[in-house]
Amino acid sequence: MVSALLIGLSFLTLLVQEPRAQGELQYAELGQCLLESGEVLENCRVAYRIFGELSSDSSNAVLFPTQFMGTSATVAPYIGADGLVDDAEHFVIAVDAFGNGVSSSPSNSSTQPGDSFPRLTIRDMVASQYRLVTEVLGLSSLRGVMGISMGGMQAFEWAVSHPGFAEKIVAIASSPRLASYDIVLWETVLRILSAYQECECQEAVSALMGIAFLTGSSPDYHARLTPRDSLPGIIGRMDSQMFAVPIAQNLAVQVRAMIGHNVAAPYDDSLEQAAARVKAKVLVIVTPEDHVVTPAPALEFAEVLGAEAIQLPNDCGHNGLRCDSEMLSQATQGFLADELGRKM
Amino acid sequence: MVSALLIGLSFLTLLVQEPRAQGELQYAELGQCLLESGEVLENCRVAYRIFGELSSDSSNAVLFPTQFMGTSATVAPYIGADGLVDDAEHFVIAVDAFGNGVSSSPSNSSTQPGDSFPRLTIRDMVASQYRLVTEVLGLSSLRGVMGISMGGMQAFEWAVSHPGFAEKIVAIASSPRLASYDIVLWETVLRILSAYQECECQEAVSALMGIAFLTGSSPDYHARLTPRDSLPGIIGRMDSQMFAVPIAQNLAVQVRAMIGHNVAAPYDDSLEQAAARVKAKVLVIVTPEDHVVTPAPALEFAEVLGAEAIQLPNDCGHNGLRCDSEMLSQATQGFLADELGRKM
Repeated sequence: MVSALLIGLSFLTLLVQEPRAQGELQYAELGQCLLESGEVLENCRVAYRIFGELSSDSSNAVLFPTQFMGTSATVAPYIGADGLVDDAEHFVIAVDAFGNGVSSSPSNSSTQPGDSFPRLTIRDMVASQYRLVTEVLGLSSLRGVMGISMGGMQAFEWAVSHPGFAEKIVAIASSPRLASYDIVLWETVLRILSAYQECECQEAVSALMGIAFLTGSSPDYHARLTPRDSLPGIIGRMDSQMFAVPIAQNLAVQVRAMIGHNVAAPYDDSLEQAAARVKAKVLVIVTPEDHVVTPAPALEFAEVLGAEAIQLPNDCGHNGLRCDSEMLSQATQGFLADELGRKM
Repeated sequence: MVSALLIGLSFLTLLVQEPRAQGELQYAELGQCLLESGEVLENCRVAYRIFGELSSDSSNAVLFPTQFMGTSATVAPYIGADGLVDDAEHFVIAVDAFGNGVSSSPSNSSTQPGDSFPRLTIRDMVASQYRLVTEVLGLSSLRGVMGISMGGMQAFEWAVSHPGFAEKIVAIASSPRLASYDIVLWETVLRILSAYQECECQEAVSALMGIAFLTGSSPDYHARLTPRDSLPGIIGRMDSQMFAVPIAQNLAVQVRAMIGHNVAAPYDDSLEQAAARVKAKVLVIVTPEDHVVTPAPALEFAEVLGAEAIQLPNDCGHNGLRCDSEMLSQATQGFLADELGRKM
C-alpha cells in the first residue's frame, strides 16, 4: 500500500511538472550509447544542471562540459556575472562528462561496473552531449560550447564533430590533442592508479596528489610563492587524501579519454583537415607555463583556424586561471556576447 | 689443503701490492660510521675509483661524489680532457655515495639490510668521505670537491662542514638545500617507492620512469623536441624498466638524504651563517629550466657567498648538461686550474 502510494505520488509529481530549481541536478537517460570503439555503454546516463533561462528564439544556450575530476556542481562557480558565462544572459547547460561519478561511470554502472566499464573517448562524451542537447532539450543549435582543460577538449571536439551546431567555441587551458609531455603525464597517472588498485595504499593516492602539486603550477611559481615552511602542510594534505578503488577506475576512464583525444584522428591526423571542418568562431585561452595541458597544440590549432588566442600573462600554470580571473571573465563574456559574422 | 693454498696466494698478492689499474673499484672499510642521527652504520664501507696521479706535493686531488642513483663508474665519463675534470692534471677520487648499492646500502648490508638500514644524511655521506680522504688516502687537503645534482649537494656540504679542507667547490645542477617544489618531488618519489614495496608491480616502476621523463627536461623542451610519434618508444621504455625491492630501498635512502639536505641546518637554518663558514672558492652552475633541482637556492647561496654563478643558456633542464657540455667543461676545468687566492 505504501509503495503504491509512493508510486502514485511520484506519478503526480511528473504530471505537475514543477519548474526545476536553478542548477538542480538532472539526468538524461539515453538508453544505449554506441561508442566509437563499437562497444555499447548500457543504461547510458548524462547528468546536467541548467542555469538561466532559454530565450524565446532559443539562441542563448551555452554548453559547459566538465573538466577532469569535475562535476556540473564544480562548474557552477564559473557561471554568473563575474564568471566565464553569465546566466543572466545565457541558458547554461553544465554537463557531467562520462566517468565523473555522476554521469555513467565505473563507480555507478550496474551493468558495466568497475573494470568492465567500456573504454570511451572525448568524441563519445561529445556524442552523448549532442543527444542530450537535441533529443532531451530539443535544441537545434547552441550559442556556444565552452570548457576548461578536459572540458575544453570536449569544446574543441564539438567544433570539429558537429560543425555549425555551436556558433562559438571557447577552450581554456586545453588542447585539440595532447602534446607528448601531457601524454606521458597521464600515462604516469594511469600507472599510479593501476598500482593503487593493486596495493590499495595511501602512498599511491599521496603520489597522485604530489604530481598534481608539481604540475599544477610551474616550478618558478613555487620558487616565488611556496616557502619551505609551508611544506608540512603540503605534505600533510598529500597524505590525507584517500579514495576507493571505483573512484580510481572513474579517473582512469577520463585519463584514457584524454590520452586518446585527438580532434584530427578521423582526418588523417591532420589539424589542417580538422580545422577545415570548423564553422564556429573559436577562442583559445592558454597560460604559457601550463604544465598539465601544455599550450603548444592549442596555439597551433588557433593559428591554423585563424582564431583568436589569448596567452594569460602569468606563470601560475594550469591551476592559475584565478591569477587573471578578471581578464579571463572579460575575454569569454565579451567573446560570447560579440556579434556573429566576424569569423576570421 | 686447497683452501690453505688459496689463502697463501691471496696473502702473497697483498704483499706484492701491484699498482691498481686506473679507475679500478676499491673499497675503504671504515668499521663503524657514527651518523648524525646518533645511529651507527655497521661495516661502513665506502667505494671509490682513482683516476690520474697524485702530484708530489699532494696538491691536485679532486673528490667527485656520485649523483642520485649514480656510481663511481657513471662518474667516470665526466673525467678526462673533454670532461669536467682532467685526470691528466688531477688525482680524481670518484666516490660512491651511501645507498648507491656499491658503498654501504640496504641492498648490500649484511647486518642492517633492507628497511633496517639506518636513515642517513648528506652530511653523513660527507663525513664518510672525509674519513676516506684523510684516514685511507692520507690526504690533508683537497684541490677541490665537485659534483652534479646530489653529488653537488655533497660538494656544498663539504664547503660548510669542512671549511678550508678543499680549496675549490663546484656544484652543478645542485642545491645547498632543496626548494619546496624539489621536496614535494622527492616526497612523491618516496611514496611511489613505498607503494612499489607493497605491490611489487611494474606500474610503480613505470610511474617513476614517467616522473623522470616529465621533470628531467622542461615541458617547453619536450614541446620542441619530443614529437607525438616518439611516444610508443617512450612509453615502451617506461614499461620495460624493473628493479627489485632492495633497489627501491637503496633509492629511498638517497631520496630521504636529499629531502633532509640543508647545509644551514646546524646554523639556525641561516644560509648566511653557513656561508660565513665557507673558505673555499665556489662555482655554482645551474640550468634555468631545471625541474628536478630547481636553481633558486643555489643562486641564493652563490649570492650570499659572493661566488661565481653560471646559468647555462638552455632549457634542457636537469638532464641537459650535455646541451652545453663544452661550455660546462671549460668552466669547471678553468675554475679548477685557476690560481688560488682569488676568492671573491
